[in-house]
Amino acid sequence: MTNLAIFYYSSTGTNFQLAKWAEEAGKEAGAEVKVRKIKELAPEEAISQNPAWKEHYDKTKNVPEASLDDIEWADGIIFSVPTRFGNVPAQVKQFLDTAGGLWANGKTINKVVSAMSSAQNPHGGQEATILNLYTSMFHWGAIIAAPGYTNQELFAAGGNPYGVSVTVAQDGNMVEDVEKAVKHQARRTVEVTNMVVQSKVNAR
Amino acid sequence: MTNLAIFYYSSTGTNFQLAKWAEEAGKEAGAEVKVRKIKELAPEEAISQNPAWKEHYDKTKNVPEASLDDIEWADGIIFSVPTRFGNVPAQVKQFLDTAGGLWANGKTINKVVSAMSSAQNPHGGQEATILNLYTSMFHWGAIIAAPGYTNQELFAAGGNPYGVSVTVAQDGNMVEDVEKAVKHQARRTVEVTNMVVQSKVNAR
Amino acid sequence: MTNLAIFYYSSTGTNFQLAKWAEEAGKEAGAEVKVRKIKELAPEEAISQNPAWKEHYDKTKNVPEASLDDIEWADGIIFSVPTRFGNVPAQVKQFLDTAGGLWANGKTINKVVSAMSSAQNPHGGQEATILNLYTSMFHWGAIIAAPGYTNQELFAAGGNPYGVSVTVAQDGNMVEDVEKAVKHQARRTVEVTNMVVQSKVNAR
Amino acid sequence: MTNLAIFYYSSTGTNFQLAKWAEEAGKEAGAEVKVRKIKELAPEEAISQNPAWKEHYDKTKNVPEASLDDIEWADGIIFSVPTRFGNVPAQVKQFLDTAGGLWANGKTINKVVSAMSSAQNPHGGQEATILNLYTSMFHWGAIIAAPGYTNQELFAAGGNPYGVSVTVAQDGNMVEDVEKAVKHQARRTVEVTNMVVQSKVNAR
Repeated sequence: MTNLAIFYYSSTGTNFQLAKWAEEAGKEAGAEVKVRKIKELAPEEAISQNPAWKEHYDKTKNVPEASLDDIEWADGIIFSVPTRFGNVPAQVKQFLDTAGGLWANGKTINKVVSAMSSAQNPHGGQEATILNLYTSMFHWGAIIAAPGYTNQELFAAGGNPYGVSVTVAQDGNMVEDVEKAVKHQARRTVEVTNMVVQSKVNAR
Repeated sequence: MTNLAIFYYSSTGTNFQLAKWAEEAGKEAGAEVKVRKIKELAPEEAISQNPAWKEHYDKTKNVPEASLDDIEWADGIIFSVPTRFGNVPAQVKQFLDTAGGLWANGKTINKVVSAMSSAQNPHGGQEATILNLYTSMFHWGAIIAAPGYTNQELFAAGGNPYGVSVTVAQDGNMVEDVEKAVKHQARRTVEVTNMVVQSKVNAR
Repeated sequence: MTNLAIFYYSSTGTNFQLAKWAEEAGKEAGAEVKVRKIKELAPEEAISQNPAWKEHYDKTKNVPEASLDDIEWADGIIFSVPTRFGNVPAQVKQFLDTAGGLWANGKTINKVVSAMSSAQNPHGGQEATILNLYTSMFHWGAIIAAPGYTNQELFAAGGNPYGVSVTVAQDGNMVEDVEKAVKHQARRTVEVTNMVVQSKVNAR
Repeated sequence: MTNLAIFYYSSTGTNFQLAKWAEEAGKEAGAEVKVRKIKELAPEEAISQNPAWKEHYDKTKNVPEASLDDIEWADGIIFSVPTRFGNVPAQVKQFLDTAGGLWANGKTINKVVSAMSSAQNPHGGQEATILNLYTSMFHWGAIIAAPGYTNQELFAAGGNPYGVSVTVAQDGNMVEDVEKAVKHQARRTVEVTNMVVQSKVNAR
């Protein structure tokens, strides 16, 4: 069976929702799926000053935190991350950076990876953030299976070929309807991951 | 006086329009402005098969082609280019590549540069195309003055901090209203270029 | 059998040599390999003014030019390209841009891709050029299998995780010894391509 | 007078040394210079397990930590950062991310920025890390003055046009001799920053 880890960071819920949709589609596609929250770096007092952040923080207290074991466990990985100045949030970078030991032991090789993003402006770093994340994934020896234009649903979601992305309005709601596109991306990630997993089975 | 070159490539008119708006604002800001069309590489028969392309091609026959002399002349440069697979069109790259001699003689140093882009999908490479162009500009020793979020008009245009970008609908019309944002970017480019020009004057 | 296309652009021979090494390893790995020269855009008189360019140009006159049919034929693709201002040469971009029709018909999807590069300075765009090429490949719906750090030979070659790269000295010779690393990258590209090809066979 | 902040993150001393060279040249160029250490995120026990890290950590205990006030104070900024998987370290991203409030109030606009990097392999992310950092700087509305090829010393240092970069050998020593190139980059950053500062003075 194919192991799919969905690593997300979310302050007010958008990327958590993307992760949940991906989870649903990943399971339907036959993968064993783990949704894992990337650890918060912000102090509790900063979170408490923002009611939407605080609400989501409390609501997802029980979601397990992403660990190095989860990376090792995964055959495929989907990241769901907001943009912070056109790059991944520090929280996400911190999680990646701690994988130095796994990397040195060849444990990050041939993971099949794709990523999703969100931003407050339609062109607020949705593309750049995913591309910058993929740069790190090349260091890992990952196999990148971005969605490209492999499905009509992707166009409705804004046509970001690097990964599905969404714009978050001032009220916290998503502007584009990306559910179907997210699910396509998850299925595609599982499909390509299956190829890698199957080739290992065949090689036995 | 500050010399501003606006180099554009346009098949069906969008980036020509962006260039014209930039020209208007650049002149109002007191710059000497040249709008220059980047040379077409496609054969006439390919152009003729696309009525919208053919129409724009004929309509802009008299716009002077961008030359190496224009690069040398310019204190500031604004590029207006469509995306082709998340990167500048071959036509634009060809124009840049021919500047190898200017580059080797230090004639590309300290040009103040910003860029604008267009694509058919909202996240169809608007960000990536501009960033890839800036990568080349770093080789030139240019000073990059992207718009960032220096003005409220930029948010209305989609909030692309790397440069104003626009989405082109199937019917060829622009989706976002970017005129004011383009004009802000042009003014900002002139403003920063003025700083460089003035420092040369002071140094005499 | 797995079809591997090696598309290269070379003015004075470096990227042709990389392509030949990749061809050798690709064949040993069991792939059907085609080495294809990306079409020159420079006029003959420009070529003639540079003896090293002219010599290589004449020497490789009989290498078949890369065509859209070659893209369609390929299951896997290795690009070998020099940097021009931190991005692919106009010649390479022109070749990619002409694939718009293939792209629109879904014929670029799931190609397994990796790339190699060269530059005259050790940090002269070796990384940026490959990353910019991959950006376009995401638009194609390609699966990117960069070498990462999947093999010890890669370290000896400079440890470029995005793809093997080499520095070309003033005398035209390669600075780093990259033959083994290039061959590893070719084998890896074939290996990942085989997974995709095999999954299609299984799906019948 | 022009205020230059040099923000560095260093685990074993390389980027601290680059920062010190930049400081020396910045002062010689007439700027008021602050060298500031970006705050560590790693726990003390992790640091203690690595003798070289521990030694540098203790040695630089008295270097003031980079603060938001330092960003606001600065007219120009030079970053000196190691690569972590082709991107800035989490520590650096965390520092940038905390500037959200400054950004929202327009306090990051028109800072003149350049960056330097280091990595363990010659092509181990030296280019990508700087480019990814610049992506964030575009969001800030910064003016990017990368060194390009504006000086002969840059070629001796490896010719990274995005910013001076250095390779760190297994023994912790720098491979390339980059001191002169670093000093050139610092002088250039001050020079361009002076232009912006002077234009503000003139506007009064």
